[in-house]
Amino acid sequence: MNDESKQRLRVADPNAQPLRTLPPVSETFPNSSRVLEGELGVPFREIQLAGGEDPMRVYDTTGPQGCDPRGGLPRGRAPWIERRLADRPANLSQMHFARRGVVTEEMRFCAIREGVEPEFVRSEVAAGRAIIPANIRHVELEPMIIGRKFLVKVNANIGNSAVGSSIEEEVEKLQWAIRWGADTVMDLSTGKNIHATREWILRNAPVPIGTVPIYQALEKVKGRVEQLDINIYMETLEEQAEQGVDYFTIHAGVRLAHIPLTARRVTGIVSRGGSIMAKWCLHHHRENFLHTEFERICELMKKYDISFSLGDGLRPGCIADANDEAQFAELRTLGELTRIAWSHDVQVMIEGPGHVPMHKIEENMRLELELCHEAPFYTLGPLTTDIAPGYDHITSAIGAAMIGSFGCAMLCYVTPKEHLGLPDKDDVRDGVIAYKIAAHAADLAKGHPGAQKRDDALSKARFEFRWHDQVNLAPAPVRARQFTDQTLPAEGAKLAHFCSMCGPHFCSMKLTADVRALGQDTVAEGMAEKAAEFQRQGGELYVPLASTEPTP
Amino acid sequence: MNDESKQRLRVADPNAQPLRTLPPVSETFPNSSRVLEGELGVPFREIQLAGGEDPMRVYDTTGPQGCDPRGGLPRGRAPWIERRLADRPANLSQMHFARRGVVTEEMRFCAIREGVEPEFVRSEVAAGRAIIPANIRHVELEPMIIGRKFLVKVNANIGNSAVGSSIEEEVEKLQWAIRWGADTVMDLSTGKNIHATREWILRNAPVPIGTVPIYQALEKVKGRVEQLDINIYMETLEEQAEQGVDYFTIHAGVRLAHIPLTARRVTGIVSRGGSIMAKWCLHHHRENFLHTEFERICELMKKYDISFSLGDGLRPGCIADANDEAQFAELRTLGELTRIAWSHDVQVMIEGPGHVPMHKIEENMRLELELCHEAPFYTLGPLTTDIAPGYDHITSAIGAAMIGSFGCAMLCYVTPKEHLGLPDKDDVRDGVIAYKIAAHAADLAKGHPGAQKRDDALSKARFEFRWHDQVNLAPAPVRARQFTDQTLPAEGAKLAHFCSMCGPHFCSMKLTADVRALGQDTVAEGMAEKAAEFQRQGGELYVPLASTEPTP
Repeated sequence: MNDESKQRLRVADPNAQPLRTLPPVSETFPNSSRVLEGELGVPFREIQLAGGEDPMRVYDTTGPQGCDPRGGLPRGRAPWIERRLADRPANLSQMHFARRGVVTEEMRFCAIREGVEPEFVRSEVAAGRAIIPANIRHVELEPMIIGRKFLVKVNANIGNSAVGSSIEEEVEKLQWAIRWGADTVMDLSTGKNIHATREWILRNAPVPIGTVPIYQALEKVKGRVEQLDINIYMETLEEQAEQGVDYFTIHAGVRLAHIPLTARRVTGIVSRGGSIMAKWCLHHHRENFLHTEFERICELMKKYDISFSLGDGLRPGCIADANDEAQFAELRTLGELTRIAWSHDVQVMIEGPGHVPMHKIEENMRLELELCHEAPFYTLGPLTTDIAPGYDHITSAIGAAMIGSFGCAMLCYVTPKEHLGLPDKDDVRDGVIAYKIAAHAADLAKGHPGAQKRDDALSKARFEFRWHDQVNLAPAPVRARQFTDQTLPAEGAKLAHFCSMCGPHFCSMKLTADVRALGQDTVAEGMAEKAAEFQRQGGELYVPLASTEPTP
Repeated sequence: MNDESKQRLRVADPNAQPLRTLPPVSETFPNSSRVLEGELGVPFREIQLAGGEDPMRVYDTTGPQGCDPRGGLPRGRAPWIERRLADRPANLSQMHFARRGVVTEEMRFCAIREGVEPEFVRSEVAAGRAIIPANIRHVELEPMIIGRKFLVKVNANIGNSAVGSSIEEEVEKLQWAIRWGADTVMDLSTGKNIHATREWILRNAPVPIGTVPIYQALEKVKGRVEQLDINIYMETLEEQAEQGVDYFTIHAGVRLAHIPLTARRVTGIVSRGGSIMAKWCLHHHRENFLHTEFERICELMKKYDISFSLGDGLRPGCIADANDEAQFAELRTLGELTRIAWSHDVQVMIEGPGHVPMHKIEENMRLELELCHEAPFYTLGPLTTDIAPGYDHITSAIGAAMIGSFGCAMLCYVTPKEHLGLPDKDDVRDGVIAYKIAAHAADLAKGHPGAQKRDDALSKARFEFRWHDQVNLAPAPVRARQFTDQTLPAEGAKLAHFCSMCGPHFCSMKLTADVRALGQDTVAEGMAEKAAEFQRQGGELYVPLASTEPTP
């Protein structure tokens, strides 16, 4: 953390009241511990299993624990950056290094996290097919990579608004979101204390932080859209860049000529940034200044290595508006801007919808790859129907899993409160988990090496009646355990060799174990002999098995 | 209800204590009422909307309200059946009538529910591509149709087990499941009072009821699998047929030769019925008696018009086992059995997996259509990953939506408690709603006529800030309303012209309304003029709109 930031952090909390604290991660994930691999200290969560099974290592986003949020996280990247700055380079982007054949520490870090070779990471970043969002000022970051040949990632949104929440709550929301597996977090704050909130979040964020700078720029002109201009905007970018924001959503693709294409839509423009820029364009009857001044923005991005998240300001907000002319006209513009950013070696990802029925999802992915030259796609859902407010984490997890399987690199989560209110802790957890499920389902479908290991470990635990292992391998072990306790409260039941849903006499896994023990060699040894042997071994159908799980 | 059943119903509850009652349907769905269309009284739920919008009619499964469960529902089908029985026909199946060109009352009823022509229903039933599960003894039934050219349907499982729940609770679960939209319900009871439980359920069921008769047959031989035989089984079928069960899951496809194919699986045989039959086959070293005596079963089915739900006893129970030789060998057998059932004019649907990664789902649907001659497919999920116990309604809603979009006709729900415990009321609600979402997303993807009406109505309400309409069109309006109340508690906020997620200054819908009001004719009238006009109309960005929703 630079001194100025430290100063701001102190100012943000002059009374230094202790924060509310979340329960320790070890309580959220029993039998798990954070392990660091190699000299770079790449984090994994290791889950201890019973039954002689090897521990299971899973991707970990929770970050270092036990730090006082007022002091921030350890500044692990600082020495890497300092060494690079010694050369006084004009361009610090990972893409710039990658294209010159340099494998950075960030690339090596990502390679270990993903289980691939560092050279593969470098080549994907060089080609623009993947990005490592990593502002040189965000030295607390544990680097991660976004690209369709890597694990599908999940973003969670936090941020105060005019209606609710405090700074402390926002930091807690960050920690809560990454506990459940959010790979990046967007701070969408729009209210007061926007600068201080962001400072707190960044200094406590082991994951990349994204923002939508137009929100703060609009605050600076007191909400008067027409008073926005490139100078106010650049000043805002500079301020956020200095703090360490890793990627900016910039709605440079909303062009004046696109706006009439939204006139017949059922829900018009549903992107906040998109509607702000549309209003500006109409007011001045001029081209979007984010579009006309795009190269000036690129100059700033490369100094800090901030990645573009090119906003889809004209994304559809309902099923009726999906895949329309407005949406695809903007996507074409985003492809043109991608080329410009890449000419500066600035990293780019492309934001996507929104609301799309299932049969129109694949076209989105195909056109994005084609028009945006394989830059990583980052979609909000998409929601596959509009009819289910209160359950939009599910309407959208369906679309997210599908577009992930087609090649979408990152999925922006949707909580059950979407369209209705601001998410609370349970909503954030349920939103992140729904999206981790979608991302993992997509990884399986893409055949990501190693993705199936956790499925196999969990299914084996289930088949062997290792109830504690099944629960500890689940996304929310405490909740899973509460569920089993409601039906089988006694500890003895955790050793039970039947599934609580069926009861002891109708447990297929129990029956299969019997069938298998007695019949699995039937082909080789002859069916009739085995049948006779089965009968000789006694009339009891439900022979107790030797326990495969020690008492915990 | 015949006299014997009535007698049993009385015996089941000698003390005649009043049942716990659910809140009235009108509380669950504010501004909605049940309306009956035409002389057959086909039910719909009509949702009143504000803003001058026509009321929205949606498919309704809740059944007649206000009946004492001890007396059962009105016996609306009784006269139809009595007329048919006057001819003393040997075969009462809908398929039999359909193939002779007869359009039954049940077919006309389904046609009105689906918004199609009765002749289309008849031809689909005649071809075996759709079924109307409707036992002649289930006279309380409101007929419905299962087939891939109709709306995708959802089944909910209920049933006591050795571990929990009472008869009263099971009836309440039935009513609860159909309130949220379950199209059929399976009674999977295995414990005591199995006959009386089923009687209560049937007499109170406006939806088809399915069972797995092998469970009761096994109770009759006190759990000793090897003592099962076709006579005990037929006696069980006859008993359940007389009560009015509409479809039977029968695991006739688990053949002796298939069992060794499961030996290397991670989770073996996960179907309860499948594992029972596998054990029987191995014990006796004989072919499955459900397979060898299949035609005898057909003779009974056609007398009552009970539909086969041919069980997938060898369905995969984990990702590792998906689409394996055992699964597809059984599917081939089910196709052979379908031909035999159809030679008796007995209706058939085919059960399917289970656990399948996304990229293997389409193959399931394709092979089912090919091997089973387009008989309707009825799948359990499928779950697209094994890693998320506690959230398997979501892992499986993804797979369910996908297979539904490929042509699966009915989706068997999975609740958040799957693999962990017995579902409670919230779990049943959340399971059914997750599956209604999956089914609806599939209907949209298939382009079912009229499916998008509800999406459009909801999105229009959202865009016009008709908060009450948005909530009343949601799957669980009370929950949706609680969500809005948490963020915007005041009644005045329900009239607010901004979305609570963003606050008044950043509401894209608000901004779009401004943009649209001022800029939608820009192409025709010239951009520059409109921009000037926009400025003339005043500096206020957030012009209040005229309210589109009256105070409730």
